[in-house]
Amino acid sequence: MAEAKDDDPVASATPPLSWGRARGELGGGTQVSQRLLAYSDALLSIIATVMILPVAHTKIQPDQKFNESVQQLLATKIAVYLMTFLIVTVAWAAHVRLFQVIELIDDVLALLNLACMMIITFLPYTFSLMASFPDVPFGIFLFSSCAVVIGAIQAIIVLYGFDHPYLLNHQIQMSENQAFYKYHILKIILRGPTLSFLAAVFSFFFIPLSYVFLGLVIFFPHISHLTKWFRSKVLGQEEEAPLESFTFYLTEPLSKERVEAFSDGVYAIVATLLILDICEDNVPDVKEVREKYNGHLINALRENGRNFLAYFGSFITIGLLWFVHHSLFLHVTKANRLMGVLNTLSLAFIGGLPLAYQLTSEFAEKSHNEIEAIQVSCVTIFFASIFQFGIWTAALFHERETLHPFARYGGKEHAFMFAKLALYPCVSLAAFVLTCVLSELSTSIFHLIQIIVPFAFLVLRIFVRVGLMAFRLVISLSRPRRSVLEEEEACLSPAEMS
Amino acid sequence: MAEAKDDDPVASATPPLSWGRARGELGGGTQVSQRLLAYSDALLSIIATVMILPVAHTKIQPDQKFNESVQQLLATKIAVYLMTFLIVTVAWAAHVRLFQVIELIDDVLALLNLACMMIITFLPYTFSLMASFPDVPFGIFLFSSCAVVIGAIQAIIVLYGFDHPYLLNHQIQMSENQAFYKYHILKIILRGPTLSFLAAVFSFFFIPLSYVFLGLVIFFPHISHLTKWFRSKVLGQEEEAPLESFTFYLTEPLSKERVEAFSDGVYAIVATLLILDICEDNVPDVKEVREKYNGHLINALRENGRNFLAYFGSFITIGLLWFVHHSLFLHVTKANRLMGVLNTLSLAFIGGLPLAYQLTSEFAEKSHNEIEAIQVSCVTIFFASIFQFGIWTAALFHERETLHPFARYGGKEHAFMFAKLALYPCVSLAAFVLTCVLSELSTSIFHLIQIIVPFAFLVLRIFVRVGLMAFRLVISLSRPRRSVLEEEEACLSPAEMS
Repeated sequence: MAEAKDDDPVASATPPLSWGRARGELGGGTQVSQRLLAYSDALLSIIATVMILPVAHTKIQPDQKFNESVQQLLATKIAVYLMTFLIVTVAWAAHVRLFQVIELIDDVLALLNLACMMIITFLPYTFSLMASFPDVPFGIFLFSSCAVVIGAIQAIIVLYGFDHPYLLNHQIQMSENQAFYKYHILKIILRGPTLSFLAAVFSFFFIPLSYVFLGLVIFFPHISHLTKWFRSKVLGQEEEAPLESFTFYLTEPLSKERVEAFSDGVYAIVATLLILDICEDNVPDVKEVREKYNGHLINALRENGRNFLAYFGSFITIGLLWFVHHSLFLHVTKANRLMGVLNTLSLAFIGGLPLAYQLTSEFAEKSHNEIEAIQVSCVTIFFASIFQFGIWTAALFHERETLHPFARYGGKEHAFMFAKLALYPCVSLAAFVLTCVLSELSTSIFHLIQIIVPFAFLVLRIFVRVGLMAFRLVISLSRPRRSVLEEEEACLSPAEMS
Repeated sequence: MAEAKDDDPVASATPPLSWGRARGELGGGTQVSQRLLAYSDALLSIIATVMILPVAHTKIQPDQKFNESVQQLLATKIAVYLMTFLIVTVAWAAHVRLFQVIELIDDVLALLNLACMMIITFLPYTFSLMASFPDVPFGIFLFSSCAVVIGAIQAIIVLYGFDHPYLLNHQIQMSENQAFYKYHILKIILRGPTLSFLAAVFSFFFIPLSYVFLGLVIFFPHISHLTKWFRSKVLGQEEEAPLESFTFYLTEPLSKERVEAFSDGVYAIVATLLILDICEDNVPDVKEVREKYNGHLINALRENGRNFLAYFGSFITIGLLWFVHHSLFLHVTKANRLMGVLNTLSLAFIGGLPLAYQLTSEFAEKSHNEIEAIQVSCVTIFFASIFQFGIWTAALFHERETLHPFARYGGKEHAFMFAKLALYPCVSLAAFVLTCVLSELSTSIFHLIQIIVPFAFLVLRIFVRVGLMAFRLVISLSRPRRSVLEEEEACLSPAEMS
């Protein structure tokens, strides 16, 4: 927002020096990292999500029983997808923390970051190689090597940053203990690569040990956090306070802007993967239309009717889940660790939606498969939305630090936020129950339910308003008149008063 | 950046009222539109770019002569891609302008915007339907109807905005002529949909006229701009100044942030489409490796070696083109109309890179096809980079309004920026000349050239520095000593002094 106001042509023709930092340019090649980080977020969120495509594009024979094919064909691929998503998210979190230390960039850092991005986008490939050949040393070696290279590049970035201290976080820059910070940060950054290096070495001797090391890379921060929590809460041992005020722990909260940017990337790519499938598969063949349908395009398109319905239903679901996420994060002031983990889990299920779409649009006949396709969709949507609800619950536990006053218990947006977040878990659960009760449920009806939901949002708004008004009326009957008026005035936002 | 500083937990626990606008929350459901716009930018840039996939995935027979297949198979598809890109860009530009008028959003506007996005993402499908069946009325009708619906939703957004004036741009909000603005903006927004409506109606009577109308939708703003320019420059007729200071013309500059966000989306999706292809096609089959290569994974991967080389080469090219774009826009203070058009053209060629990658990685044998695949790559890269250079040239013509002082003629970053922007046009031109001179050129060599280029960037930096130092030395010999020292001090940025 600060930048938008700088657009004034007269003012920006002769910008004063103090504007440099805000305007993204500091001279001498030094720049704020804003756009570099936004681009990295976009790359990483897309790479985490597109790995669902090999799963979604798995060919399932129509005569095959769906349940079998899920177990045989999809299980491994889904596991690969989920693990890749987790790995990329871990890499992303490390990237976020790294650029919390280094706040300004120059050309060298920009190029180093791009190199780092290149290796990270290559990770999913090496991982699927490893998953396809779990007992071949070379697969593990390749994956671990990539992790080592990423760590090496990040270490170089840190060293370069401390060599040019004006690029660093202001707090570190002012500190007298720069050397201490440097080694502390390097130690944390090189922990993962060291484990990966050991995994690479052991891949040629004893493969199971390699997997143990690789598992540690992902789960170490969580384990160490849990241990600390256990020690402080259960055993009552207090953590020693760090010597200086700036900490670089993996347990620190992520910056809210980057969580939003990463989430936006995931939602955006999922929404567009749908139309890509439509464009590739559902443009009828010119020859076929001429011969089979006597040139009647509408008749040919009618065959694909359910695909369009599936597309609109899925797009609306993704759009509204984004909308709920957006509303939630408007009221979040700070994302703590647990909220970050829950957000990642929610996004992983969001990324599964193209698979659900593929399944519901593929099984055209009224069959057992159709019911199961709907069930998969319901489960995916349910988990995506219940983890969003989880973010909200986690935020409420520390509401003074994490939430805007409006959204806290008793705040004027609290009830509406609750209703918004509860909508999708309820709808998907209800649809799931329907599939169990009814022996036949058409996917068309399912998609129609999806399309109707947004109107529920609007109805919800009216409903919550009416409910609150009734509630206030009840209270006002038990209080003197004047104070009620004052209270209502205090509740009104400046926007509503104007 | 302003938001990043609000992360301080103590401060954000009790935010003062004046922070509302900066923090993205205004109470009563009113919110700043920042994240909604970023999400829209991501959606639109991805949808504009993924349409290259159907082109890139066109199966070309290895025995077919490449030149023929390009002409027969690819020409239509490439035309569809380019037109879709243009159409989505036009829709995006309209969206940018709309949200320059409406600065704050609430839930209703967010949902309306999502509905608008849904129809826009459906546009590419209806367009490819129209391109496949150019003489069937229904294809044209469907495409035109989508355009009408988009216009209708945008008109509702405008009406809703003027009905809740606190959501509007501050200047309009304060104006006494709100009704005038309302009709003026509605008139401009409904121009396209009206033409599309006529196209939809005429599709059932006289198809060529429909195409004329649809062509007008895209080119009308450009034509009207050219006419105005022609009238004012050549005929010397002066435009009457608008009655009030706020203008909502399609010829106004776009906001720089949204141009950046849209460009980032295109670069990010192009970079990730590459790895997607690798992941889908190049994970060897478990059975094949066991039977054909006796379980030696490395041997199996060696077959795909050139694909990996192609991947790294292409990723580096895209990364560096992003880097150049990033450097350029760091010094751009305002993007005028011509710069916006050039940026779109550059992005359209960037979007063509996955096709170039597909071609160079597909033609393994040393054949005439291989040379032509390299030539296609060179041409794509050349146009992508020369249009970037064009943005710079266009900016220099109005450098006082569009460029930061550092990048203007004589500024300290001017020479280096010039060198950066000139690098890719030169390299791609040189590679193209090589393909004409040599009768055989391996794609591997081409990709190696791509991989070497980033080091050229670093060399360039040193080269420009040395050149500038020599230049200064020459000047200093012809001037008294003291003033040189002063000048050098003035040139040093605060970062370099520390």
